[in-house]
Amino acid sequence: MGEKLNGDFEIEPKIFTKILVAVDEDDSQSSINAFNYAVTTAKRLNVPLGIVSILEVGDFNIFDTLSPEVLDERRAQVADDLAGYVNKARSFGVKDVTAYSGEGKPGVVIINDILPDVNADLLVCGSKTKPLTGRKRVFLGSQASYMSQNAPCSVIVVR
Amino acid sequence: MGEKLNGDFEIEPKIFTKILVAVDEDDSQSSINAFNYAVTTAKRLNVPLGIVSILEVGDFNIFDTLSPEVLDERRAQVADDLAGYVNKARSFGVKDVTAYSGEGKPGVVIINDILPDVNADLLVCGSKTKPLTGRKRVFLGSQASYMSQNAPCSVIVVR
Repeated sequence: MGEKLNGDFEIEPKIFTKILVAVDEDDSQSSINAFNYAVTTAKRLNVPLGIVSILEVGDFNIFDTLSPEVLDERRAQVADDLAGYVNKARSFGVKDVTAYSGEGKPGVVIINDILPDVNADLLVCGSKTKPLTGRKRVFLGSQASYMSQNAPCSVIVVR
Repeated sequence: MGEKLNGDFEIEPKIFTKILVAVDEDDSQSSINAFNYAVTTAKRLNVPLGIVSILEVGDFNIFDTLSPEVLDERRAQVADDLAGYVNKARSFGVKDVTAYSGEGKPGVVIINDILPDVNADLLVCGSKTKPLTGRKRVFLGSQASYMSQNAPCSVIVVR
């Protein structure tokens, strides 16, 4: 509930000091909207930008079901995509750009492993949607939803 | 899902053109964080700011259970709080500020009634938390969660 302040407060300017954007390995338009917002904002505020991509492990165990060769290929693809994003951000004019990667459930890995390391105060993600049986669509992917609910920092879902 | 673009895209600067911030009638610290971010951003981007407060109708029917006098008092309190926020935003330097109000479930009313009218491309809300039986706390209030999932525009949950 919090304390009721009855208007008795001064505005404190709130400016983010480090931004982390999650780019998705298999949903490019959603990633690109989030990425465009993140680079535009990092450049304007002149703050460091982290870019994270997680090799997604869903309900099946990717490490068991994929051959080592295919797994290596997918890891290389994530690294390659990430390098592309980093180059684009630098070309756009963001000075301080760092890439992060991981493997697992994106929301969980980003909240538990990446964010504490990066220490960002704004997490940027796309609004990946998936068609679901029996519903027209969900408006927010489960990973973005998980991050909005569990991040210790502010989270923006970009549409 | 979406189309896989393989890095073959140009960055398009993404800047919000109209901001709507939801201020809460009974959770001031959460509202204030959201409000501070919204005014800071509206001023920096020099874009119009809408401020919305919804007289919350929860599981009980406030219109039946409250006396007309108490209801009038609560409506007046919401209007008063809202006027205070508008004045603060203007004093801070946001030129174009408009107040909006409504009654009902905040998330639903904001998405269905207020947003289509305001036409904002960024909705700002706090991360109101409530203690729940059997859990330590939830990290995101149900209204913010509803808005993140259902808004047609970008949503930022400010912490």
